[in-house]
Amino acid sequence: MSSTNSQVIRCKAAVAWEAGKPLVIEEVQVAPPQKMEVRVKILFTSLCHTDVYFWEAKGQTPLFPRIFGHEAGGIVESVGEGVTELAPGDHVLPVFTGECKECRHCKSAESNMCDLLRINTDRGVMIGDGKSRFSKDGKPIYHFVGTSTFSEYTVVHVGCLAKINPAAPMDKVCVLSCGISTGLGAALNVAKPTKGSTVAIFGLGAVGLAAAEGARIAGASRIIGVDLNANRFNEAKKFGVTQFVNPKDHDKPIQEVLIGMTDGGVDRSIECTGNVSAMISAFECVHDGWGVAVLVGVPNKDDAFKTHPMNLLNERTLKGTFFGNYKPRTDIPVVVERYMNKEMGLELDKFITHRVPFSEINKAFDYMLRGESIRCIITMDN
Amino acid sequence: MSSTNSQVIRCKAAVAWEAGKPLVIEEVQVAPPQKMEVRVKILFTSLCHTDVYFWEAKGQTPLFPRIFGHEAGGIVESVGEGVTELAPGDHVLPVFTGECKECRHCKSAESNMCDLLRINTDRGVMIGDGKSRFSKDGKPIYHFVGTSTFSEYTVVHVGCLAKINPAAPMDKVCVLSCGISTGLGAALNVAKPTKGSTVAIFGLGAVGLAAAEGARIAGASRIIGVDLNANRFNEAKKFGVTQFVNPKDHDKPIQEVLIGMTDGGVDRSIECTGNVSAMISAFECVHDGWGVAVLVGVPNKDDAFKTHPMNLLNERTLKGTFFGNYKPRTDIPVVVERYMNKEMGLELDKFITHRVPFSEINKAFDYMLRGESIRCIITMDN
Repeated sequence: MSSTNSQVIRCKAAVAWEAGKPLVIEEVQVAPPQKMEVRVKILFTSLCHTDVYFWEAKGQTPLFPRIFGHEAGGIVESVGEGVTELAPGDHVLPVFTGECKECRHCKSAESNMCDLLRINTDRGVMIGDGKSRFSKDGKPIYHFVGTSTFSEYTVVHVGCLAKINPAAPMDKVCVLSCGISTGLGAALNVAKPTKGSTVAIFGLGAVGLAAAEGARIAGASRIIGVDLNANRFNEAKKFGVTQFVNPKDHDKPIQEVLIGMTDGGVDRSIECTGNVSAMISAFECVHDGWGVAVLVGVPNKDDAFKTHPMNLLNERTLKGTFFGNYKPRTDIPVVVERYMNKEMGLELDKFITHRVPFSEINKAFDYMLRGESIRCIITMDN
Repeated sequence: MSSTNSQVIRCKAAVAWEAGKPLVIEEVQVAPPQKMEVRVKILFTSLCHTDVYFWEAKGQTPLFPRIFGHEAGGIVESVGEGVTELAPGDHVLPVFTGECKECRHCKSAESNMCDLLRINTDRGVMIGDGKSRFSKDGKPIYHFVGTSTFSEYTVVHVGCLAKINPAAPMDKVCVLSCGISTGLGAALNVAKPTKGSTVAIFGLGAVGLAAAEGARIAGASRIIGVDLNANRFNEAKKFGVTQFVNPKDHDKPIQEVLIGMTDGGVDRSIECTGNVSAMISAFECVHDGWGVAVLVGVPNKDDAFKTHPMNLLNERTLKGTFFGNYKPRTDIPVVVERYMNKEMGLELDKFITHRVPFSEINKAFDYMLRGESIRCIITMDN
């Protein structure tokens, strides 16, 4: 039993006071975990585009002050009532979406979209009592996607914590708690390219590169990266991308270019930009008879996906994925294990382009906004 | 060697001289099969909506005079050069789409869309030499989808003939050469409902009923039929449909009705009407996390399938199928065999609502146009 158990912890957190303004390292109070909750000491966290998107708050109702952060690794400090699967000292990865293990989704082998703990970006409080566990000077600070890992300590629902092997290198596997698993799973669990096949990846950010990594691991022999930024190709080669197509270089729809390059279409495509035109291109560029297009990128509210139904009738498949179809508690510990055993050939180092101490967390935002980083690991100071 | 081998055969055929006009039984000449072709004596044929659609010629360039018919069973009369897999006396089902066994589609386990012999409704001639094998008074009569089974004898590419067990009841299994296999395969090969699952079938014509039959065979416990014609429900019960929804009875989109009836959506849906609104409803009514919608019905040229991409991101799958994903030569003989052995529980009798002699073939058109028949078997007089 830790000495801090059941007590309020005072620690440092990077608070976003306003949309788009640099985070401020503040001393905050972190309340003890309540029923089915766990308080976690964060060791490493990284910055993901979703943090930046909600920090900028351009596309949704702003919710501030808020503690962002959802890609991370840490150690259980204490557990609340009813928590039996985790104990202080356990190593965990917080995940932005959960697995209650009791709803129809959790009981279905096909879904990871837990009814109870599915991602909710609007909710800034704990699901149990509708309150925040963070405060400063008595005023609450909102949570973000149930994780809020830009804090030395955070409180997370037990259903959103993947218990991992304590021997795992936390400063690397922390990136598996969001983007990398999303892309990797989109390839390995959903697109499932066969050996020797051709895969197109739309968008060569972290998720797209992870999808390429998955396609490479699955044995795809030709991986075509599609991106508007030509600078990304060199980096992408490390992740198995063999060819690069920039839509800016062509005056016809990019699906036609890809169909021409591949004698009728690619075997699989994975869309990681969220741009609806790219989604349509990603679907229409797959081969008839067997092509599968997988959508990963999150679209805008008013987007419409539009295609001629004959494209479907000709035996193309269109599907979407959420968090790479991984169930957070069941599957992520297995991915960590397989990574450690070098079973699958997954290489995490190449995703980690930058590291900063917690005190310099705003640099991580700068790297991402300038498009320089894939993942920047933030080392907590505690 | 048959006595008619290598000779022109004179026989009766039902010729469509003009769009929408009753067929006329004429004496026609049927030339011997050329390279890779087979001349087949038709024993039984049935009428499918596709025959009627092209006979009406409302949506495409008319091609007349033409001999329609593509659901049938017969016996090989003679074979052309290069045909080694079939010999006179073999029992065969002609199929409107083929399997060359050499192209990428035929070599792929996932596709049945043969590059060489894929359905072509515009072509009225043999693929080998671009000529017709039918004539009357020296003037050619066009073929239809490579089968033209409304004739006592027809010439078919060897790649479009499924060789079946000669003990199979030809007057029943002939319906497996098009619509019934299309619906059955859409359920068994593509939608793959699990035991106890809920399946929605859009359109309760022959293909939809075959899809329901497939869902029933697969063990779906709840099969919801959706049709604008309330009269179809009683018949549909025989095929496993447990519940009926008529969009006319509701003032909200039918996908919302289905979602309400099923606590979030059906597990699988199969669209058999070709109406693009029904396609969208069929997709949007499947449950998030695991729902699969399968499109079977053929849309109009200018239709657009439109949905919000979030419906996909929430782990729904949308796919189309062609001829139930069956490879004609490889798979249809197996379906016939399994039907004969009662392995799968497939019941063909209930699809066959009418029978007429060849001389009364126009009655089959009347039954279908009045919506009275599922399948009308036409017995050749020879």
